[in-house]
Formats: sequence, C-alpha cells, structure tokens
Amino acid sequence: MPAAPAYRRLSVEERRSQLLHAALTLFAHRAPEDVSLDDVAEAAGVSRPLVYRYFPGGKQQLYEAALRSAAEELQRCFDEPPNGPLLPRLARALDRYLTFVDEHDAGFSALLQGGSVVETSRTTAIVDGVRRAAAEHILSHLEVTDPGLRLRMTVRMWITAVEAASLIWLDEDKQPPVEELRDWLVDQFVAVLSVTADRDPQTAALTQKLTADS
Amino acid sequence: MPAAPAYRRLSVEERRSQLLHAALTLFAHRAPEDVSLDDVAEAAGVSRPLVYRYFPGGKQQLYEAALRSAAEELQRCFDEPPNGPLLPRLARALDRYLTFVDEHDAGFSALLQGGSVVETSRTTAIVDGVRRAAAEHILSHLEVTDPGLRLRMTVRMWITAVEAASLIWLDEDKQPPVEELRDWLVDQFVAVLSVTADRDPQTAALTQKLTADS
Repeated sequence: MPAAPAYRRLSVEERRSQLLHAALTLFAHRAPEDVSLDDVAEAAGVSRPLVYRYFPGGKQQLYEAALRSAAEELQRCFDEPPNGPLLPRLARALDRYLTFVDEHDAGFSALLQGGSVVETSRTTAIVDGVRRAAAEHILSHLEVTDPGLRLRMTVRMWITAVEAASLIWLDEDKQPPVEELRDWLVDQFVAVLSVTADRDPQTAALTQKLTADS
Repeated sequence: MPAAPAYRRLSVEERRSQLLHAALTLFAHRAPEDVSLDDVAEAAGVSRPLVYRYFPGGKQQLYEAALRSAAEELQRCFDEPPNGPLLPRLARALDRYLTFVDEHDAGFSALLQGGSVVETSRTTAIVDGVRRAAAEHILSHLEVTDPGLRLRMTVRMWITAVEAASLIWLDEDKQPPVEELRDWLVDQFVAVLSVTADRDPQTAALTQKLTADS
C-alpha cells in the first residue's frame, strides 16, 4: 500500500492497515527482536504514540496482528480451483507459497525457527493453523473426506519437509532455483505417497488416481 | 537412578545428577509450564532451597540443564557401528530414537512444538544441535565427506519429517505400531533419496550403493 497523501485524514481502519503493512514489511526482513516500535512509526511516517494508540499491547500485539495478516496471505496461496490434473495444481500452489517465502525471507525464518522473543503459544497456534489449512487443502484436492492415520501422517510429514526445505533454501541464498525446488517437492510428494501406498489401501487408491491423471 | 539412601550425604555431582534426573522425569511427561520447582524438590525428596542452591537460575536453568542431558541421551541413540548393510543400521538407530520418543512423550512434544514458556534461543540451539548431529551421523554412514546442497537438503528434510512423524505418533496414541513406523520411515528415506538422485549425481551414486548393499 503506498503512503497516503498527508492532506487526507485516514480512517481508523485505513490507519490500522497502514501500520500493519509497515510492520509486516519490517518483520518480513528482520528478526522480530531487531524491529522496534520506533522503526514501525518511522516506516509508517507517524509518531510512536500513534502506534501505541492502535496497538496498546506494543510490539507483541503488533507482531501478532502482523503475523495473523501474513498467515491469511499465506493461506490464500493454497487457493486453487479443483479442476484439471492434480500435480499441476500442487505445483501452482507451491509456486505461490515459494513466492511468499521469497518475499518474507528473514521474518519467515525467524517465525519457523522458534526461540524468538515474541514467540508465544498464540503465535505457535497461528502457524499451526496455516499447517492445518495446507493439509486440508491437499486432502480436499485429493477428494478424501475421511483420511486415515497413515494418509494424514504422510501429508503432514510432507508439509513439514516443505517447510524445512524453505528454511534451508533461504539459508542457502535461495538455491537451488525456485522452479527446480518446486518440481523436486512435487516429486517427493508422489514418492512418499507411493511408500505409504505399500501399506495403506486408501493411499494406494490415491496414487493410482494420480498416475491415471497425469 | 534410584533415590539415594537418606543416611549417606551425596557429593555435589551426585546431588546435581539426582536433581537433574528428577527434573527430566517430570519434564518428560508434562509440559514445562506444568512443572514447578516444588514438584522437582518433592520428586527428589529434597527442599526447594536446596534445588535453588544447585540451580540458582530456577526453573529456566533446570529446564535447560535437563534438556542438555536429554539431548546427550538422544544423540547416543544415533551411535551405530559403521559395519554391515546401511538400511539395517538406519533401522536400529530409528528403533532407539523411537524408544526415546516413547519414554519422553509429553516433554518431547512440548519441546518440539514450540511456544513453550521456557523456550529460548538457547533451548532452540540445543534442539538444532541434535538435528545437526543426526544429519552428520547419516552422512558419515553414507561415507559422504563433502555433501552437496541437494543431498544435505534431502537428509535434513527427512529428519524433519521423522520429527513430524514422532509428534503425530505421540498425538495418535502411538499408532501405527512402532515397528511399522520404523520401516515406513526407512522406506521414505530411500524414496526421497531416489527422487533427489534424478537431479543430483552425488545422490544417484549413493542410491546405487544402497541398492547394491541390500
């Protein structure tokens, strides 16, 4: 969002969203402990008391609000119409996810690596909510309404592996190239499903569908 | 360690290790926020001031010391002689690891799920040290001295997936049976290596060795 012209008074909602945007930009590229409320005020071109008026809980409240807004943005990456072959759908969602990771690099790492000063059971719950949403999206595209334990575990293990890959990718100066990473992750998804298919009829039916579909 | 008989004075080292053992047992089965210093004193059969004498930093210091001791125990699970076929070595290390997970259930979950009140950058560093040790063990068994990015990523992604599996397994009343989980994880290791082998000559050479070896 561009800075609003100085001659217009912002509504409460606009102001809040302007502060949140400034905070998110800062938290995206620095660890939360390296962002001060002064930084946020300066980035938004407002006074520190004004930031406090909107976020009386200070940095913790601002961080959680920014995180919630980032979590919503991240969940929108998973939106994909339920049409066409399955693996290209997964590849498109991964493309959007990896773009998000690319754009929120330091903040994304700080959040997922834990041990941050602003991490609480509430921030952990927000992140877990995103993981759960990712798993639900995948199962809904696979048209599974009652996933068994082995299938659920496989999907959640793959999601965790994708997170780990994202963190290493950021750590390694965004290597390998993002298209290679995306295809590699899709191939891993098929591979781990196949391993589970050997011991789970529900997953075996899915892998047959995936093969027929591609 | 059994409680020491009351008539013998414990040495400083013995007392410290007794307190640590009591703390570890409590932290193993409850989330850290549900363990008080009084609980530790009671479990060790000593007074609360005595616990403070050994751990002046209170619960945080005790938790970190207990965590460090658990981390050492966990790393010993990875010790495996570098002889014989590779996959049975991995299976044996996983057996020991899963026994550890079984014995430290609630504490293991609390630690890895983050957002705990006693989580700090130091506790995160201890956990990361264990992950790093696991990766080094695997690469040394594979006799790789200079692992490339794609191989390192594959090993770390698999380790993260194993962690995720452990947490879900604890959540699901330790289902599927531990032997099935172990074999499944070994099969996944082979599968993700094979996917990487398609795009990385170093990993391709390893998968050939794994196949020849089994």
